[in-house]
Amino acid sequence: MDTENGGKPGVSSTKPQTKWILLLPRLLAFCATVSATVVMALNKETNTFVVATIGNTPIRATLTAKFQHTPAFVFFVIANGMASLHSLLMILVEVFGKSFDYKGLKLVMISILDMMTVALVAGAANAAAFMAEVGKNGNSHARWNKICDKFDKFCDHGGGAIIASFVGVLFLLIVSVMSIIRPIKA
Amino acid sequence: MDTENGGKPGVSSTKPQTKWILLLPRLLAFCATVSATVVMALNKETNTFVVATIGNTPIRATLTAKFQHTPAFVFFVIANGMASLHSLLMILVEVFGKSFDYKGLKLVMISILDMMTVALVAGAANAAAFMAEVGKNGNSHARWNKICDKFDKFCDHGGGAIIASFVGVLFLLIVSVMSIIRPIKA
Repeated sequence: MDTENGGKPGVSSTKPQTKWILLLPRLLAFCATVSATVVMALNKETNTFVVATIGNTPIRATLTAKFQHTPAFVFFVIANGMASLHSLLMILVEVFGKSFDYKGLKLVMISILDMMTVALVAGAANAAAFMAEVGKNGNSHARWNKICDKFDKFCDHGGGAIIASFVGVLFLLIVSVMSIIRPIKA
Repeated sequence: MDTENGGKPGVSSTKPQTKWILLLPRLLAFCATVSATVVMALNKETNTFVVATIGNTPIRATLTAKFQHTPAFVFFVIANGMASLHSLLMILVEVFGKSFDYKGLKLVMISILDMMTVALVAGAANAAAFMAEVGKNGNSHARWNKICDKFDKFCDHGGGAIIASFVGVLFLLIVSVMSIIRPIKA
């Protein structure tokens, strides 16, 4: 990118077309992590259950399932939010940040930040996925009952967010591979 | 490494000293992930509890806590095992693989593999950590009781393995940053 005007001859990745190929996976990763963040952050379901009957009178209890009740889902929202911010920032740097470069340091910094973002989102997505697995199937050894039979909407939305996050991880992996290769070509 | 004998002048990282600086964090990461794998894989505790008393006769039940009962811990063992294998392989390539290089492709491949290993181990360590948190504190909203009050040795060993894995993630991050910088210097 630093060779756009008046660079050395024979240096690749100067055409706007190449720029778009680099931006596309980043944009897709951004969309995926933003959806994951929003869907999980708005995930809440309130249900009323009959817990007992005294004579003919049913005793009802209202229970709410929120993402805040599970630490893994809180981390999920924070991590995907941070990854979205990172992707947005990197897109802005890519589009407007021609003059920021100093001896190719920019591209290396981007590679390192991308790598750390992959690790962060992978951690959050895996933690949430395994927590969701317990919610779906329970764990008979620990006597943890499944809750997805009672809160199916909550589980569907959570599952959607986790899938979105894994799609985000995939695109972030692609972005990271491209970021690692790029400073060498430049 | 490809410039050790008869390389271009002005190329750095040719001294054996630099080689050791590169190998040390990899070796430490290897030790950390191997300990995490072994400690978690051998994690098993059997306890006998008094579950009821009929008259004066206590009814006992023997329960076993194993890492295999939790999918997150199974993934943890697999992922840390794979990371250990990766570190070992990379150390061998570093020490013996001078002749494998093709146009700097070796260093780039190492960078990419390192990045993926960081993501893998980060995912496993986070998943296990959040699962351990539920085991330690329970989740009152989901009515999941803590199990660490009954299986304290199991929880201590699991916690140790998780800490070792996070130490491994830290060293793998350092290794990955160094791998990203290296092909540019070379």
